[in-house]
Amino acid sequence: MTTSGQSLFEQHQDLLSDAIAACRTRSFFSGYVESPSGKLHPDGAAQAGKDRFDAQLGRPFALEQPGEIGRTGLEISPYTQEALGIDYPKIDVDTAFLKARSAMPGWRKASIEERAGVCLEMTKALESQSFENAHATMHTAGQSFLMAFSGSGANALDRGLEAIAYAYRAMNDIPGEASWTKSFGRAGEVTLEKSYRLCPRGVAVVVCCATFPLWNAYPALFANLMTANPVILKPHPNGILPVAMMARTCRRVLEKAGFDPNLVLLAADTADAPVTIDLVNHPDCAIIDYTGSQRFGAWIEKNCAEKLIYTETAGCNAVVIHSTEDIDGLTNGLANCLAGFSAQMCTTPQNIHISAEGVDTNQGRLSFEEFRERLVDAIKARTSLGEKAAGLCGAVQSPTSLDIMEDLKQRIAGHGRIALDTRPYHHPEFPKARTATPLVLEVDADAGALYQEEHFAPVSFLIREENAEAALANAVANARQFGAIASYLYASDPAFLAQGKDAFVEAGASLWCNMTVPMPINFAAAYSDFHVTGLNPAGNACLTDLAFVANRFRIVQFREPKVFDGEPHAS
Amino acid sequence: MTTSGQSLFEQHQDLLSDAIAACRTRSFFSGYVESPSGKLHPDGAAQAGKDRFDAQLGRPFALEQPGEIGRTGLEISPYTQEALGIDYPKIDVDTAFLKARSAMPGWRKASIEERAGVCLEMTKALESQSFENAHATMHTAGQSFLMAFSGSGANALDRGLEAIAYAYRAMNDIPGEASWTKSFGRAGEVTLEKSYRLCPRGVAVVVCCATFPLWNAYPALFANLMTANPVILKPHPNGILPVAMMARTCRRVLEKAGFDPNLVLLAADTADAPVTIDLVNHPDCAIIDYTGSQRFGAWIEKNCAEKLIYTETAGCNAVVIHSTEDIDGLTNGLANCLAGFSAQMCTTPQNIHISAEGVDTNQGRLSFEEFRERLVDAIKARTSLGEKAAGLCGAVQSPTSLDIMEDLKQRIAGHGRIALDTRPYHHPEFPKARTATPLVLEVDADAGALYQEEHFAPVSFLIREENAEAALANAVANARQFGAIASYLYASDPAFLAQGKDAFVEAGASLWCNMTVPMPINFAAAYSDFHVTGLNPAGNACLTDLAFVANRFRIVQFREPKVFDGEPHAS
Repeated sequence: MTTSGQSLFEQHQDLLSDAIAACRTRSFFSGYVESPSGKLHPDGAAQAGKDRFDAQLGRPFALEQPGEIGRTGLEISPYTQEALGIDYPKIDVDTAFLKARSAMPGWRKASIEERAGVCLEMTKALESQSFENAHATMHTAGQSFLMAFSGSGANALDRGLEAIAYAYRAMNDIPGEASWTKSFGRAGEVTLEKSYRLCPRGVAVVVCCATFPLWNAYPALFANLMTANPVILKPHPNGILPVAMMARTCRRVLEKAGFDPNLVLLAADTADAPVTIDLVNHPDCAIIDYTGSQRFGAWIEKNCAEKLIYTETAGCNAVVIHSTEDIDGLTNGLANCLAGFSAQMCTTPQNIHISAEGVDTNQGRLSFEEFRERLVDAIKARTSLGEKAAGLCGAVQSPTSLDIMEDLKQRIAGHGRIALDTRPYHHPEFPKARTATPLVLEVDADAGALYQEEHFAPVSFLIREENAEAALANAVANARQFGAIASYLYASDPAFLAQGKDAFVEAGASLWCNMTVPMPINFAAAYSDFHVTGLNPAGNACLTDLAFVANRFRIVQFREPKVFDGEPHAS
Repeated sequence: MTTSGQSLFEQHQDLLSDAIAACRTRSFFSGYVESPSGKLHPDGAAQAGKDRFDAQLGRPFALEQPGEIGRTGLEISPYTQEALGIDYPKIDVDTAFLKARSAMPGWRKASIEERAGVCLEMTKALESQSFENAHATMHTAGQSFLMAFSGSGANALDRGLEAIAYAYRAMNDIPGEASWTKSFGRAGEVTLEKSYRLCPRGVAVVVCCATFPLWNAYPALFANLMTANPVILKPHPNGILPVAMMARTCRRVLEKAGFDPNLVLLAADTADAPVTIDLVNHPDCAIIDYTGSQRFGAWIEKNCAEKLIYTETAGCNAVVIHSTEDIDGLTNGLANCLAGFSAQMCTTPQNIHISAEGVDTNQGRLSFEEFRERLVDAIKARTSLGEKAAGLCGAVQSPTSLDIMEDLKQRIAGHGRIALDTRPYHHPEFPKARTATPLVLEVDADAGALYQEEHFAPVSFLIREENAEAALANAVANARQFGAIASYLYASDPAFLAQGKDAFVEAGASLWCNMTVPMPINFAAAYSDFHVTGLNPAGNACLTDLAFVANRFRIVQFREPKVFDGEPHAS
């Protein structure tokens, strides 16, 4: 068993070294294949993945794990609006914790290298199911195929590898043994032999979200496994399949390497019979990794205070537009971002703050209205044709998002107007898909009640501010009070740019400046971008940094006098 | 301003490098002079320190800080049982947080090196008042002069330097800037310039304890200052003077280096008008470093859950005696430890678990009773003469400790007997000193109600167990449930030793094995020993490790397209 973990480590050591180096330089790196291009994959891999997904539909998901007390699961595909018809084991909560705990000692006793070897092997095994996972993610989260393949494949796995790298370094910072010699004055010199054992905290519950089931699940899973904490995966009720596939694959890798597969367990549920509170409240739950709403995140922080809690929740991400040397790049980049995955990404901006006086650009000064029309046109250009919209927008994960937009369209009366209405677009491949083009609402700055919270839907606000300074101040104040995961500033004036950076630092919010096409302006890069600052209500943890891993394990120490020549110290 | 912090860094850089190296090897290191020997200090330094302390008695403590709304302080010397007659500024809590917060931006903007330079300079300035501090510590905490000089001087400063070293490394793990280039397929290649700003969380409240006012205060102070968080120091009502001296000295160093002295503030109080709850409940309090009782520590964890909390509280430290190859070293070492500073150290053992069948030793098998008599004799030998007792036991900090022992002597009836009674010893220098020799109570294992909590007094329990296995099991169960900071195991049998280590690891408690004279068996070494595991109720934080520092700062990031030849990216 020991050999196996060790040999896996040797097999994947270069991958880990490269990831560690990338975390230090924070330059580009990826350990996995990001593109589904046929040239990069074995012949037939794409079709085989699709076939496996199709074969799973309407059947029980085969996952052998302890504590099964029935079957559960009721996932609806945003693309077909039909049930996937897959059921999963329903786990007894007490049994889950019991089995997870009894899997700990063997895993804790494995060396850091052995655990790293098994975790690295898991990432490779997970990569090998990227095609099947892409279809599973499409039909649960609603992502487009391309996004599901890369964003829930390689990009997410890189985040997992990043967590492995940080955990590996944090643990290796502590030597296994030490020798310590000190003179105690006239009493003489003493030499002690010391040893340090790294200990896990206990069972971690990883609560995954609906739209990116694996994005935070991978870093949380591997941060916990590396530090020897077992993981109970709690998928969103409509996002079970990708997480169940992850659980099954990880359990197989563990078993093959000679470890107890119950280090990774799945706790699936339905919206009608939720199990999350039972899991996070369980006395044996030591760590909670939570991705989801601010409201439930705050509940966990208040009610599970004695546990270690890492959260990514939500914020109302802002765009402040002062001026630009690239108005086309700005509007195209912003339009891509507002439409991309129907604005269901945590880094999508919602509130666009613009001076009523307009914006200086490389094409001359644009009035507020002219800017609005350019943005609206850019969005229309991307969403008017179903083929184009399909690749960009994907589907809307939850019908609630449509309700949110209807509600806002009612509430806008008296506060502003609809700058661009939302409508379903026709998906060429899935005619029954739940789709929506972006809704853009134009409001005055004083309509804060409308925009000072995250609306989880493809909606954005064009906020008419007195001037650029007021735009900045409003955006910064909202980031501080209501949270922000990604904020955006456009300014060709270096002084305003510097002022903006200082202001967002004070609010504890990261800032993307003058981001334009060709890249997706909200792309978050593993090893390079720090995701979530932890300084505002959008979450308390950065995925991934040293703080994300350093407290998941603790140090228990032994010391005893060095025995010289077989004799203990004389008294 | 900038030059000063930087030049201080250059001046002390070797000290920091040595500390960093020691944290890695965990071998012996000290950056400060541990002994008060005249040979190691300038002529007259000892007398000058004593004179300064004497001159302070009966006078207001000169500390200029904002928000003074009166005077406070009512310290009684355990050596004279008279009031010190010193008063301190009483600070307005809101003003304290306001001033601390307004001191943050300049300190945050300083480089890591500048902050390190100032912190290192503080440690040297604090070292220079070691003699005065020793007297201040004696007459508040009750420590003997030698312990006060080293344990509250160099040994505590080394813990502060250790925190500086860890914080320096954790922050330097993140580069200031990075360049990131990625190909986005047909869209082309994009290069982003990224920069990372390390941000503090906010004002930290450091709650100090009565018997070791500086031991945890130094690591907490420097962990916070290094990561740019201002500190409000809250001394114990009877341990203000050493903390006030620390505050004044740190403020002077800050001011001299051109920084706002309000980065360090003192919030003194009295037992009758306590201010701690107002401080930790204040909305601007972001971090709490707490040393004190389990009860109040638990209150803070429950009631201040939204803040970052680091605690060291208390446990009922155990000694398990299976067998020994050095019975004299064992009894002498244990007797030293039970008498040392009247058992008021967090590492002092309380519960001595021994098999009713006795103990195998290098002098043959000793019955339970024979072992008891040897231990009692060893304690008596150290405490029967006032001169000898004075250096070892020091004074009893609080009259409550005497009440605790009286109470236990009443409660022992029916559960066991007094193996060694406590009595005041005559201190040759301070005839009115509050003193007590160790009380040793002999109980059966089933009298857990008596020994399953920490009694903060020079009391220990000789617990008669069915056999060595039962002794181990009981000690381990208590460590898990009631907490332990240091546990002790004596076993010449390698199998039992290994079994003991495994058992204590499972309980999350560190274990000192076969510790005998000549060193104090409970000596905790900076850079080498990890203090508090965080896995049992004796505290949630290790002082000091990466986890102690890594979450005190957060990362705010900027990114923007790299401008080539003065042109932004084409759209």
